[in-house]
Amino acid sequence: MKILVINGPNLNLLGKRQPEIYGKDTLADIAERVDTVFGSQAQITWWQSNHEGEIIDRLHDAGYGKEKMDGIVLNAGAYTHTSLALADAIAAIPVPVVEVHLSNIFSREEIRHRSLIAPVCCGSISGFGWHSYLLAVEALLMKKTNGD
Amino acid sequence: MKILVINGPNLNLLGKRQPEIYGKDTLADIAERVDTVFGSQAQITWWQSNHEGEIIDRLHDAGYGKEKMDGIVLNAGAYTHTSLALADAIAAIPVPVVEVHLSNIFSREEIRHRSLIAPVCCGSISGFGWHSYLLAVEALLMKKTNGD
Amino acid sequence: MKILVINGPNLNLLGKRQPEIYGKDTLADIAERVDTVFGSQAQITWWQSNHEGEIIDRLHDAGYGKEKMDGIVLNAGAYTHTSLALADAIAAIPVPVVEVHLSNIFSREEIRHRSLIAPVCCGSISGFGWHSYLLAVEALLMKKTNGD
Amino acid sequence: MKILVINGPNLNLLGKRQPEIYGKDTLADIAERVDTVFGSQAQITWWQSNHEGEIIDRLHDAGYGKEKMDGIVLNAGAYTHTSLALADAIAAIPVPVVEVHLSNIFSREEIRHRSLIAPVCCGSISGFGWHSYLLAVEALLMKKTNGD
Amino acid sequence: MKILVINGPNLNLLGKRQPEIYGKDTLADIAERVDTVFGSQAQITWWQSNHEGEIIDRLHDAGYGKEKMDGIVLNAGAYTHTSLALADAIAAIPVPVVEVHLSNIFSREEIRHRSLIAPVCCGSISGFGWHSYLLAVEALLMKKTNGD
Amino acid sequence: MKILVINGPNLNLLGKRQPEIYGKDTLADIAERVDTVFGSQAQITWWQSNHEGEIIDRLHDAGYGKEKMDGIVLNAGAYTHTSLALADAIAAIPVPVVEVHLSNIFSREEIRHRSLIAPVCCGSISGFGWHSYLLAVEALLMKKTNGD
Amino acid sequence: MKILVINGPNLNLLGKRQPEIYGKDTLADIAERVDTVFGSQAQITWWQSNHEGEIIDRLHDAGYGKEKMDGIVLNAGAYTHTSLALADAIAAIPVPVVEVHLSNIFSREEIRHRSLIAPVCCGSISGFGWHSYLLAVEALLMKKTNGD
Amino acid sequence: MKILVINGPNLNLLGKRQPEIYGKDTLADIAERVDTVFGSQAQITWWQSNHEGEIIDRLHDAGYGKEKMDGIVLNAGAYTHTSLALADAIAAIPVPVVEVHLSNIFSREEIRHRSLIAPVCCGSISGFGWHSYLLAVEALLMKKTNGD
Amino acid sequence: MKILVINGPNLNLLGKRQPEIYGKDTLADIAERVDTVFGSQAQITWWQSNHEGEIIDRLHDAGYGKEKMDGIVLNAGAYTHTSLALADAIAAIPVPVVEVHLSNIFSREEIRHRSLIAPVCCGSISGFGWHSYLLAVEALLMKKTNGD
Amino acid sequence: MKILVINGPNLNLLGKRQPEIYGKDTLADIAERVDTVFGSQAQITWWQSNHEGEIIDRLHDAGYGKEKMDGIVLNAGAYTHTSLALADAIAAIPVPVVEVHLSNIFSREEIRHRSLIAPVCCGSISGFGWHSYLLAVEALLMKKTNGD
Amino acid sequence: MKILVINGPNLNLLGKRQPEIYGKDTLADIAERVDTVFGSQAQITWWQSNHEGEIIDRLHDAGYGKEKMDGIVLNAGAYTHTSLALADAIAAIPVPVVEVHLSNIFSREEIRHRSLIAPVCCGSISGFGWHSYLLAVEALLMKKTNGD
Amino acid sequence: MKILVINGPNLNLLGKRQPEIYGKDTLADIAERVDTVFGSQAQITWWQSNHEGEIIDRLHDAGYGKEKMDGIVLNAGAYTHTSLALADAIAAIPVPVVEVHLSNIFSREEIRHRSLIAPVCCGSISGFGWHSYLLAVEALLMKKTNGD
Repeated sequence: MKILVINGPNLNLLGKRQPEIYGKDTLADIAERVDTVFGSQAQITWWQSNHEGEIIDRLHDAGYGKEKMDGIVLNAGAYTHTSLALADAIAAIPVPVVEVHLSNIFSREEIRHRSLIAPVCCGSISGFGWHSYLLAVEALLMKKTNGD
Repeated sequence: MKILVINGPNLNLLGKRQPEIYGKDTLADIAERVDTVFGSQAQITWWQSNHEGEIIDRLHDAGYGKEKMDGIVLNAGAYTHTSLALADAIAAIPVPVVEVHLSNIFSREEIRHRSLIAPVCCGSISGFGWHSYLLAVEALLMKKTNGD
Repeated sequence: MKILVINGPNLNLLGKRQPEIYGKDTLADIAERVDTVFGSQAQITWWQSNHEGEIIDRLHDAGYGKEKMDGIVLNAGAYTHTSLALADAIAAIPVPVVEVHLSNIFSREEIRHRSLIAPVCCGSISGFGWHSYLLAVEALLMKKTNGD
Repeated sequence: MKILVINGPNLNLLGKRQPEIYGKDTLADIAERVDTVFGSQAQITWWQSNHEGEIIDRLHDAGYGKEKMDGIVLNAGAYTHTSLALADAIAAIPVPVVEVHLSNIFSREEIRHRSLIAPVCCGSISGFGWHSYLLAVEALLMKKTNGD
Repeated sequence: MKILVINGPNLNLLGKRQPEIYGKDTLADIAERVDTVFGSQAQITWWQSNHEGEIIDRLHDAGYGKEKMDGIVLNAGAYTHTSLALADAIAAIPVPVVEVHLSNIFSREEIRHRSLIAPVCCGSISGFGWHSYLLAVEALLMKKTNGD
Repeated sequence: MKILVINGPNLNLLGKRQPEIYGKDTLADIAERVDTVFGSQAQITWWQSNHEGEIIDRLHDAGYGKEKMDGIVLNAGAYTHTSLALADAIAAIPVPVVEVHLSNIFSREEIRHRSLIAPVCCGSISGFGWHSYLLAVEALLMKKTNGD
Repeated sequence: MKILVINGPNLNLLGKRQPEIYGKDTLADIAERVDTVFGSQAQITWWQSNHEGEIIDRLHDAGYGKEKMDGIVLNAGAYTHTSLALADAIAAIPVPVVEVHLSNIFSREEIRHRSLIAPVCCGSISGFGWHSYLLAVEALLMKKTNGD
Repeated sequence: MKILVINGPNLNLLGKRQPEIYGKDTLADIAERVDTVFGSQAQITWWQSNHEGEIIDRLHDAGYGKEKMDGIVLNAGAYTHTSLALADAIAAIPVPVVEVHLSNIFSREEIRHRSLIAPVCCGSISGFGWHSYLLAVEALLMKKTNGD
Repeated sequence: MKILVINGPNLNLLGKRQPEIYGKDTLADIAERVDTVFGSQAQITWWQSNHEGEIIDRLHDAGYGKEKMDGIVLNAGAYTHTSLALADAIAAIPVPVVEVHLSNIFSREEIRHRSLIAPVCCGSISGFGWHSYLLAVEALLMKKTNGD
Repeated sequence: MKILVINGPNLNLLGKRQPEIYGKDTLADIAERVDTVFGSQAQITWWQSNHEGEIIDRLHDAGYGKEKMDGIVLNAGAYTHTSLALADAIAAIPVPVVEVHLSNIFSREEIRHRSLIAPVCCGSISGFGWHSYLLAVEALLMKKTNGD
Repeated sequence: MKILVINGPNLNLLGKRQPEIYGKDTLADIAERVDTVFGSQAQITWWQSNHEGEIIDRLHDAGYGKEKMDGIVLNAGAYTHTSLALADAIAAIPVPVVEVHLSNIFSREEIRHRSLIAPVCCGSISGFGWHSYLLAVEALLMKKTNGD
Repeated sequence: MKILVINGPNLNLLGKRQPEIYGKDTLADIAERVDTVFGSQAQITWWQSNHEGEIIDRLHDAGYGKEKMDGIVLNAGAYTHTSLALADAIAAIPVPVVEVHLSNIFSREEIRHRSLIAPVCCGSISGFGWHSYLLAVEALLMKKTNGD
């Protein structure tokens, strides 16, 4: 199973940025741990961008491009709350997308309580730190194994 | 690890109610499948009530009663969106609570987009059908194994 | 035809509570009068509770329990405006539910202008005092006789 | 008892307009059926207009004109939600007015959830198709027979 | 100076309608009194309609028709709060329009606090009962005498 | 192809009203120009009214009357923003309706940003002055030629 | 008849401030003109303050103090829209208060569309420039002469 | 004087729950202290429930039941902000109810700023910790002694 | 213990203003009664002003001036709902402030439901008439005696 | 005449994406058809990007760059509703921009009812499928030929 | 150049009030430092008041009084968010006013995010502690030197 | 001290775009003037982009990249009001950011009154034209010299 993990704006700073809050794990650390767990079951590609347009391009590519994916894990960062274009891109591709968040977005400012992409994702997982990624990949695997 | 799965209003009708939409699985079917997967790692108790007050009592009991739980999976149904008292109960007990929903609540009517309990749960999982329960139990196990 | 009349919170006080406003008729008085009119056409059960959870249980029972009903008349009192769980229960059972109110809810405070249960009831009748019940039972009988 | 049934905008198209939704009954069909039921108890006049001003004139006439009515059944169509002048007209005449709707207005778009005329009508009946008219006439007859 | 007094919906019932509240004066009584006061200074035409479209036609006629007016006094009744088309008509004619109300609209329900026509009238007078008309005619006379 | 162009409130004043803003073209001038362009392809009827009820009647007539139309161009003026009854009339007839506006309604006051009729029209054209009519007629012709 | 004219914040600058907009008339000029007209019928006191507290004191004094007034004309300036305390003061005194504004407050920014004092004044006059004061004094005289 | 103190959802956990915030006093401790102060003047019954329906039942009982109360102190916890049914119950009984809160509800999240029950209570006391109960009982005693 | 009782706008009219509603007690009467009860335990200063600025000055003086107070009882009248500066003054002084209201502000117009000063007061008491002052002084005494 | 057609996010998927809804026409197909119609009158450049920043750059280039355009047709997709920067770019260039949409945006979710770019475009055309582009090009040609 | 620095409510407590938050600098300390820097370029007058009316008077005086100022620096404290009268005063005087705040008002409660005076000030500076005053004076000097 | 000045969307058109409004100064002109003033105290880098993603990248680079900056001046243009991702980027880097605007954003449309980035900037300066940049650089220098 080919899975793409897309990370949105500012997630490249994980580990560097306010480590007392976000922890010292970088995206690379998380990727390694998740790959260790699911390495035999899935081929996982990790990718990050701060550009809304690039993320849309990448979603299109995952849906219709050469390296068509079987599932996508998407941590859209702040674009979760402001990008309707991202939501349209998710709706436009024939690949299931799971929304993830490291933190519980409902404990934060009100503007972060509304997710524009949630309605077009097949499911959402938030609040479990790096475990959120682990659970999201597992959710995609289950989906494949057990059907809907 | 002792885990309590609490199901709120109308979830007792799963399998009976509009099976063409919600599927034919009853809560008992789901419980059996989840127990099969995690039987060796966790002792899972399944419980359902349509009464807000009873759910609060049960949460208190899970937090301070005889049979103190190590983790709770909560599908609060419609109380998710209207019960501040439930949120207070979750905040008042020293046990991690994971919010789950069978369907993607953000694809439904606007009143279901706001979760009053999300801010006090440690994490939320929604949209994966009965897999949501499976992922929630796994999240609690991970939390125990890997710490936060 | 078997009809269940469900009365929600504070309706047990009818007749006692501010009789200069609500009149001196108790629920029992109303029941008697309605039964007198429709006794030959319908077997009407009258029931009251102040507990949201119990009303949900009773709706489930009327839909799937032993004594399955052919129609339900529901005066949900204040729960009309706050209980999404009640709305879900109505939507979940294969029995037509008619919403009734003694008074015209639109002449009262703004919070009483929104009915959460109206969208899932087959019809609504409000403002006719105890006649509202009479009309609601008649509506269910018509529905049966004339089809939709 | 003299009863006037006023039908507002677009109701003249009943039967013609989207018959798969609204049914094939025309206003004339409904009038005939209702007259059949109540012919001996009430003298019912059926009237329709697409003009807000004409409906106001007709209400005034029913209240103070030659052919003073004993009761009015009003399906104001879309004016229900936008015409404050209609509400003022209802409040200005000494005749009880019952609001009716064929469909359940609360299951439709949000703009149709607010009724400007409900606060000044003596009662409301909605969602029972053509039976709504039948019940409304009956409500007026009851009101006369039993008092308030 | 030629002045037109336009009265909107339901104002034809003045004197008849709830006389204990609105007084026993009819529009004709008011017209007579105002004419008595200003008869030598102005030629005042009194006109009433319940039809939004007719009021618009009348405004157009007063602005561009044969009997062009020098000033208009407008009590638009409930259309004050709902008719944007009336506002457009006022803005479209080269005649000053004074908005009047018998009662203080700000002491009534919230929907009556917003006047759609106020922004395009040259001034507003409300709350002085039939004196409101007297003051409005005087305002138009002053405007003519003293300029702006 | 038979096309009806309906013009709503205050549009009869075009050319007269604030010519420095709206230009000196009257509706008749515009009609003439549009007819010149499309005279061979379509039989265009021009009609104007300030009465909401008359416009509804006219729409009904165009949909079900003797002179059934193949397409309608509707400039509803201020009724665009306040008349739900007009929207219902458009939805009720089996003729495509194109919404037009001379000016860009989104550059005007906020109350003019919401169009109640847009959701039931097949398309909208605004901001091109009298060309808006030209484009609307062309749109109806294309629709006929090319299908949807 | 003893009348007090109260002018609120910034009205002391009339005539000085942007004369191309507000005209060159000072408050003293206006007072002189109004006194000239009504000198024989009323004893008018003109007073201005930029202090909310002082205006409240002055209202109290006019209602219960030595020099009890028969009527008050109040141009509360910006306090019209923000001072609930002023509204309470008006409600607390047994003297009729007429609200006046030089300009049409409904043509200005939205925050100026709501008048907190309007509901407790006996009437409102706005948009007639200095004539607003003239009409307000006349309204108070009428009220005395003709009763309500 | 017979006084009933009703405590709503989650208040049974006082003393156990986050003692560093809420203190170590249990409801029993508070009851004891309050009883000590007023023991000779009032017979105080302490009662707690997490069930909305039970609290409504208890209020009814205190108003019309065997052990009719002379006054009620109500800490409705989170139901303060969500239960319209509770408000109706308070309004329905002929016993004065004083609303109390341990903490200042206005310093907490916005959803806790609105009290649905305040409008039907005779008074409210909040923010004084366990002293809130003491003051509430005193208020009821004063009310009895001094009248209104 | 030195306590300052501050009364805001319009409270100087107590007893005079609408005595059938507010009673015949003046502030002086209330002061006397409260002093009688607490005379031996507290030295109470009574003060009133209609000026927002003066109340702020007085609060500062009570916090940092010569006659530093141990506690303040504040009935801010209408400033409760509009003065953020008053809230800042309360937050800025090291003296506990208790908010009081004679009437239940939640039974009045919506603008009076929001208290800007509540979040910075140590507690609030409303609805008990002049007893509100009595309870507020007692609350300050308790606070001193029993600590927090 | 040189015309640039800019297509925003996700429009590159036209034809591929849910063809049963959006049809099988790709952007290239549409371009070809439009070019066929207007080839002799205009030189039309088609361009698409998913990047907000690139679209802004392209607009700047069309306004001030080498290949200055005479008119622009812009289908901004989801950016229509979220990009204020795009609106600023349109306002900043001396080239008329026509807004187009394939579907009727007012029949979709509420977030799509507000167009941030409409106020700065010279006109808007929506709901005519690929004909929208055809009409937009024609509108630009008319504008050139007939002036404003 | 003559500059007036106006400080609004509660700013007289700077240095005294919560020094761990606001620092130990008093207004006098700040004035001294700012004077030291700009003493040779500007004659700066420092003034503070807790009274809205006095601040308005002072602004008028600075604009039209004897000691006319060349520029004003205004820290309006909480009046920033509630005083429309202050905004009117600023708009009424022919002197540039710079708005300053010690803290970043956008990081505080929502009620402090809206500045009523910002639209009429020539510029705003916030968040730089006492440097905000320094920058504001500099801004006024620049304005004079470089023109607009 | 190394300072980076970031300019957001459409600011590259300064000088070209509507010079009668925005002046003839280009960004280069402004840069030159600011550099002239502060050349000896700071090394200032000027940079512009229309791409949200590029601005985020640049902020990251300024915070953690090779050429780490000591302070950033940010004119985010329209992204100020729509980009939560930009706000997150500012919050994520250990470099003080000063928000600047050429114009007073509070005098423009309502959508420009809310700044998403203000809460995470150390300070804001708006309305002083190109002087805004000058003041912002000075603010950063002061911050360094005087500490917080």
